Amino acid sequence: MSGDTAQIFSEFLGTLILVLLGDGVCAAVNLKKSKAEASGWIVIAMGWATAVTIAVYASSFMGPAHLNPAVTIGMAIAGNIGWNLVVPFIIAQVLGGIVGAALVWLSYLPHWQETENQAAILGTFATGPAIRNYTANFITEVIGTIVLVFGLLAFTQHEFAAGVNPMVVGVLILAIGLSLGGSTGYAINPARDLGPRIAHQILPIANKGTSDWAYSWVPVIGPVVGAALAAGLYLAII
Amino acid sequence: MSGDTAQIFSEFLGTLILVLLGDGVCAAVNLKKSKAEASGWIVIAMGWATAVTIAVYASSFMGPAHLNPAVTIGMAIAGNIGWNLVVPFIIAQVLGGIVGAALVWLSYLPHWQETENQAAILGTFATGPAIRNYTANFITEVIGTIVLVFGLLAFTQHEFAAGVNPMVVGVLILAIGLSLGGSTGYAINPARDLGPRIAHQILPIANKGTSDWAYSWVPVIGPVVGAALAAGLYLAII
Amino acid sequence: MSGDTAQIFSEFLGTLILVLLGDGVCAAVNLKKSKAEASGWIVIAMGWATAVTIAVYASSFMGPAHLNPAVTIGMAIAGNIGWNLVVPFIIAQVLGGIVGAALVWLSYLPHWQETENQAAILGTFATGPAIRNYTANFITEVIGTIVLVFGLLAFTQHEFAAGVNPMVVGVLILAIGLSLGGSTGYAINPARDLGPRIAHQILPIANKGTSDWAYSWVPVIGPVVGAALAAGLYLAII
Amino acid sequence: MSGDTAQIFSEFLGTLILVLLGDGVCAAVNLKKSKAEASGWIVIAMGWATAVTIAVYASSFMGPAHLNPAVTIGMAIAGNIGWNLVVPFIIAQVLGGIVGAALVWLSYLPHWQETENQAAILGTFATGPAIRNYTANFITEVIGTIVLVFGLLAFTQHEFAAGVNPMVVGVLILAIGLSLGGSTGYAINPARDLGPRIAHQILPIANKGTSDWAYSWVPVIGPVVGAALAAGLYLAII
Repeated sequence: MSGDTAQIFSEFLGTLILVLLGDGVCAAVNLKKSKAEASGWIVIAMGWATAVTIAVYASSFMGPAHLNPAVTIGMAIAGNIGWNLVVPFIIAQVLGGIVGAALVWLSYLPHWQETENQAAILGTFATGPAIRNYTANFITEVIGTIVLVFGLLAFTQHEFAAGVNPMVVGVLILAIGLSLGGSTGYAINPARDLGPRIAHQILPIANKGTSDWAYSWVPVIGPVVGAALAAGLYLAII
Repeated sequence: MSGDTAQIFSEFLGTLILVLLGDGVCAAVNLKKSKAEASGWIVIAMGWATAVTIAVYASSFMGPAHLNPAVTIGMAIAGNIGWNLVVPFIIAQVLGGIVGAALVWLSYLPHWQETENQAAILGTFATGPAIRNYTANFITEVIGTIVLVFGLLAFTQHEFAAGVNPMVVGVLILAIGLSLGGSTGYAINPARDLGPRIAHQILPIANKGTSDWAYSWVPVIGPVVGAALAAGLYLAII
Repeated sequence: MSGDTAQIFSEFLGTLILVLLGDGVCAAVNLKKSKAEASGWIVIAMGWATAVTIAVYASSFMGPAHLNPAVTIGMAIAGNIGWNLVVPFIIAQVLGGIVGAALVWLSYLPHWQETENQAAILGTFATGPAIRNYTANFITEVIGTIVLVFGLLAFTQHEFAAGVNPMVVGVLILAIGLSLGGSTGYAINPARDLGPRIAHQILPIANKGTSDWAYSWVPVIGPVVGAALAAGLYLAII
Repeated sequence: MSGDTAQIFSEFLGTLILVLLGDGVCAAVNLKKSKAEASGWIVIAMGWATAVTIAVYASSFMGPAHLNPAVTIGMAIAGNIGWNLVVPFIIAQVLGGIVGAALVWLSYLPHWQETENQAAILGTFATGPAIRNYTANFITEVIGTIVLVFGLLAFTQHEFAAGVNPMVVGVLILAIGLSLGGSTGYAINPARDLGPRIAHQILPIANKGTSDWAYSWVPVIGPVVGAALAAGLYLAII
């Protein structure tokens, strides 16, 4: 593969790995009889941080490794990629999210029927608010994504020793998760939330309940607005 | 922006991000119904460490990224920056701390009214002593800041591969937090404590109590004294 | 030593250190009266991740430091090493696993007689399923090893600053452990499982029960199949 | 300062910082009313690992930063430093350990009288066995130190990007602590144990009990024997 095809495939593959490892850690902590059951927020935050780092290494030799529609839109606003790639990247990212979530379902196959809490099962796939308040939840996702996208844009102002950049991106995800994740579970990525929510809707998961589509716009629109604000702030500064 | 203006803005922006992420992790752990509620000291210490690392990356392309009046004073004593920048840097840092804390309040907006413990709410903004003893608390802050500022000055004696330095600064913050933070919550930074304490005083936070101004001099004067001692020690050695 | 002998010895020594540190952390968490007793999944996952990083540093100056028959097979399929080394590498790796596990037994010598749970003792040596379901457990090990071997092959597409690569490998192990380890304990390495299981069988460990040979094929065949699939996927992509 | 004087001072200062941060994390976890009270093994292990990393950065611009008599002896056997420096280095290291421990006492001054458990107080200063069995405890310390010193010697066979080495040393300490620390608390460093034990003996610490001198030879002789074995193994291999 080469050119745009490789880049689009890279977004699919990278987001697949991101969601496999990221939703994987939610499964590990949420599901009954898992060896990591109830192992807490440090496991969740480290799991997502290392998931992003590994997903970037596994895909960035073929493309820019955004793995996140909000990042793609932010980078397009900041002029770092062409607008023609935005729609195909987003489609690839959401498809990657669906397949990654399906692989999590497979990886923890005997655990779903042991887990009676429907919210815990949905929480393994998609994010949900600790306290449901759409306006507040939206603001939380906007602020988290501003930090994410402004951070990524600031990284482009630095030089990094070979191979170090994806680890620094992991530290950024770790910081956001530990600090700004307590209220909405830090989607900060529409593909990470929408893809697995679709998977939750269509897969025959034991004990599953509703896919909570009423909330689904928050982790999609919030990150997009945050990314646009971050890109605008960045352009105003430099 | 360029020159001194960019550097001063950089201190404002970097301290804003530092306090948004740092006080953010205190909110995540302290506030009721947070997904990270009661997730412990490793989350606090990793949260502040990664907060500093990300704040440095996000601001150091425009300035020296002290993000801490004690560091600014220590660097001035050691001759690494001009004294004319000290006052504007400190003002920018404290303003950044106020705005960062206000964004934490917004990020966790529905959680304050669920949290009835006034000390937990204040602890999300400013530090407080585990055992109130002003002399001992002052000594604790002095020792912690000596390690911080001597460490930062020792780093200037090393060469670092491109982009690695802010991660090493994060390891320094992690070490101090894990080891020397148990008694006073390791302010080691007047702006990190004073800015959020002012925010706590002026914001309409649900369930808030006193801003404990009686203690507020400890995390301001202690770090300044510690920084001066560290700079003196460093100059005596090299 | 030089040439193939050094490389084969390197696999023995590296796997010995890997299992000493990796099974060591299982002992630390599982055994009664250990200072780390019941310290949770973050300790297990960080323990295995740093075990791999250190084992690679300690052996990679003499050889490729696969330390895992599945990796050796995957690298042979991908054309990165000669097939003639595959069998001697695997033998060295399994022997290293046996000796490493014996050293764990020695390191925690007084703790075995304090630990009455036979499953906890076996779990210090070899992996076991949270829910016994051979098909599902096999799929879990396949998926985990695909991520491992595809990740390692993707790393070969990157340049790394000197000495950084083994730390990135540790991040990969950390990600897999946190995310995909909850159901089968992530063997993802036949030597890591088979070597210690043999040690468990032959050593006079206090309170030991069965070595559960019925399960032993899963963490051997699963990783080999996963490695082959990962190598095929990688070759199809590049 | 320059030459041997600087190197000897460097060992004093580095071990002081190592023990201040390392025993500091033991105080943070062990002492009553500490904000990090009972925060577990991950805090202990991360605390000591980052303590070593920072201590190395803070002293290695003046000397080799062994900060450990066992490492000094191992490096002398391996021919990496002259034997004439061994005794002055060890004296400086033990003195650094005493002063570092005294600073921990100061940092947590109001907490000692709140802590009635004498073993917890001694455990803040010096190591002790989970199960007292001098032969087994000695073997544990020997094995842990073999991994430490062989690891450090293996690092000398690698090139590292500028400034990365002390972080890799921290990963080595983290691995040993997580995996091999559960039985004896991983002294693996005579100065880290003897210096603070002397401080415990002579300081007027509230609620302190015996300094357990009967055990004190284990964390002194064990690491020295382990270092000698590691150096011999290393010389046999290269």
